[in-house]
Amino acid sequence: MENIKYENGTLYLLDQTLLPNEEKYITPKTKEDYFYAIKTLQVRGAPAIGIFAAYAMALLDGDKKELKKYLDSARPTAVNLSWATARMLKAYEDGKSLIDEAIAIHNEDKEMCKKISEYGLSLLSDGDGILTHCNAGALATSSYGTGLGPLLLGKEKGYSFKVFTDETRPLLQGARLTSYELEKVGIDVTLICDNMASLVMKQGKINAVLVGADRIAANGDTANKIGTSSTAILAKYYNIPFYVLAPYSTIDFNCESGSDIVIEERDGEEIKSMFFEKPTALSQTKCYNPAFDVTNNELITAIITEKGIIKQPFREEMRKLYD
Amino acid sequence: MENIKYENGTLYLLDQTLLPNEEKYITPKTKEDYFYAIKTLQVRGAPAIGIFAAYAMALLDGDKKELKKYLDSARPTAVNLSWATARMLKAYEDGKSLIDEAIAIHNEDKEMCKKISEYGLSLLSDGDGILTHCNAGALATSSYGTGLGPLLLGKEKGYSFKVFTDETRPLLQGARLTSYELEKVGIDVTLICDNMASLVMKQGKINAVLVGADRIAANGDTANKIGTSSTAILAKYYNIPFYVLAPYSTIDFNCESGSDIVIEERDGEEIKSMFFEKPTALSQTKCYNPAFDVTNNELITAIITEKGIIKQPFREEMRKLYD
Repeated sequence: MENIKYENGTLYLLDQTLLPNEEKYITPKTKEDYFYAIKTLQVRGAPAIGIFAAYAMALLDGDKKELKKYLDSARPTAVNLSWATARMLKAYEDGKSLIDEAIAIHNEDKEMCKKISEYGLSLLSDGDGILTHCNAGALATSSYGTGLGPLLLGKEKGYSFKVFTDETRPLLQGARLTSYELEKVGIDVTLICDNMASLVMKQGKINAVLVGADRIAANGDTANKIGTSSTAILAKYYNIPFYVLAPYSTIDFNCESGSDIVIEERDGEEIKSMFFEKPTALSQTKCYNPAFDVTNNELITAIITEKGIIKQPFREEMRKLYD
Repeated sequence: MENIKYENGTLYLLDQTLLPNEEKYITPKTKEDYFYAIKTLQVRGAPAIGIFAAYAMALLDGDKKELKKYLDSARPTAVNLSWATARMLKAYEDGKSLIDEAIAIHNEDKEMCKKISEYGLSLLSDGDGILTHCNAGALATSSYGTGLGPLLLGKEKGYSFKVFTDETRPLLQGARLTSYELEKVGIDVTLICDNMASLVMKQGKINAVLVGADRIAANGDTANKIGTSSTAILAKYYNIPFYVLAPYSTIDFNCESGSDIVIEERDGEEIKSMFFEKPTALSQTKCYNPAFDVTNNELITAIITEKGIIKQPFREEMRKLYD
C-alpha cells in the first residue's frame, strides 16, 4: 500500500478521507490543492505530511519562502511539516535539485520506518495483545509506519499479534485507517470505541500500547492524537508499557515541555455531524474539538526512534542521540 | 420532560432512540413491544427501565412469573429491572392492585431522584465545571435523574455549572440525550468525544465527575456505561472527585465485587454502522462491543443515594443504611 507515489512528474495521493469504502488517488496541482489536502486530512500522519509537503515545495512554482509559510499554516502542530519544508527551502537556496531532495526525503522515511519498526519489535513478544490509537501505520508514513511498524514488520517475520484499535473519534482514523490497514495484511485486529480501552486492559488483553507522535518536547512530553494521554493514563493504572514510536525529527528541542505545545482546535461541527446520517446533538449545542493532547513524559515507558530506544531521563537520553 | 407517562389506561414512552432529532411517544401493547423497547433502548437508564417494566407487569395479561423472566432477560445487567418486576410479582401474589403498585414505583422514583439530587448538590459549588458520561438525567429516570440530578436541581436553585458531556460511544447517549436534556433547560453544556475527557481535566475545567450506575456490588465496585471506569481512572490521576449517583436499590448485596458482574456484550455492528452514513470499517473487521464496565471502588470518592452520601469503606457504610 503506497499512499504517496511520484511517477512521471505527477504526484499521486491516496485520499484517506474516502477510506475504507473507496480507494481513490488524487493529483494535486495548485498550492491550494496541496493546502486543502493537508488541512482536510486527505494526507495525514506527521511523516506523510512531511513527504507530501516536500513534493509540494518541489513541484509548485513561485516564491518558495512564501510557499513554505503557506503550507506550514495548514497544520501548525505537525513539526514534520515545517521540518520538511525548511529542508526543501535550504535545498532551494543551495541550488540543489528540489525533486531529488523530495525523493530523498521519501526514501529516508522508508528506511527510518523500517528501523523504528525493528527497535519496536524487539520490545514485543509473539502472541502479544496490543492496543493502538489513531493511525501511525504505512498510511501515515511511507511504509511500515511508526506506531504500527512493529506489527507490520512482525507480521512479515511470522509474529501473531492480537491488536485492538481505538476507533479514534471524531475522525475515526483507528476505524477507517488502522483496522483497514491491518486487516489488509492479515493481522488479527479488533475494533473498539475509545472508551473501551480501560475494559480490555482490565481483562488482561493488552500487553503493550503503541502510538505515534506529532511532536515530542525536549522533556519527552508527547503531543499526539486526542485521546492518547487517556490511553497512557489507563496503561499506567493497569501497569502496561506505553510506547511512543516516531521519527527522531519529531523531537522539538526548542519546545521545553508539553505546556509549550499549541493544541490545534478543529471545528466543533465535526463531532456532531461528520460521518453521521443525522446530527447527534441539537444545532445550538456547543462542541469542543481539540485535535491533540499532550501525554506527560512520566507516563511513557519508552520513546522509540530510528536512532534507538530511549528511556527516562528522556531529556538527556534524547539529547545524547542528537550528537 | 416526562419520558414515561401513564394516562387513561395507556402507557406512553418517549422513544429515546429518535432523540434529539424527533420527539415521539410510542404506546407499547404486547409483551414483545415492551421487551423490544427495553432491548433496543427506546427506554434506558436503570430507574426508567424499572418503572417501565413495572407498568408492563401491571398492564400485560398472562402468567406474571413467566412475564417477569421474559422482561428481565431483555437487559440482564440492569438490577433495577429485576428489582421492579420482583416487587410487582410480590404485589400480584399479595393480591394488590398492580397498577397502583406501578404508579407507586413511579412516584417513589420521583421522590428518590429529588433526594439524590439534593445530596449531590451539597457536594458542588456554584460555577463548578462538571464532567458527565452517558445519560443519567430525567430521561433515564422519572425526573431530575441521578447523575444529572444535582445539575438540574441546581439550575432551579440558580447555580451556574459548566458541564462537559462525553458523547458516549457507540450509542451516543451523552450527545443525543444528555446534551439535549441540559440544553433544553438552559444549562451551559459542551459536547466532547469520550477521548477528550483527559484534556479537559488537565486544563482544569473539571471540578467533579458525576455518573449514574447500573449495578453497585457490595464492596462499592460499580457497573455503569462502558467508559465510566476510564473517566474514573482519569479523575484519580488528575485529583478530581468522582461521584456515583444512584438509587439505593442499585446496590446488589448478593454481588460481592465487580468481578461477579456479567458484562453485557452488544452486537459489534453497532460500532461500525449505527448512526453512520457509511460503515466506518471493512465488513470483515471484528468489533468488540461491551455495554458496561466496572469501576473499582478505590476510584470512587462517594456513592450518593437517596439515603445519603456514602464514603469508604463502602461495604460497611452501604450496609449500615440498609437497616
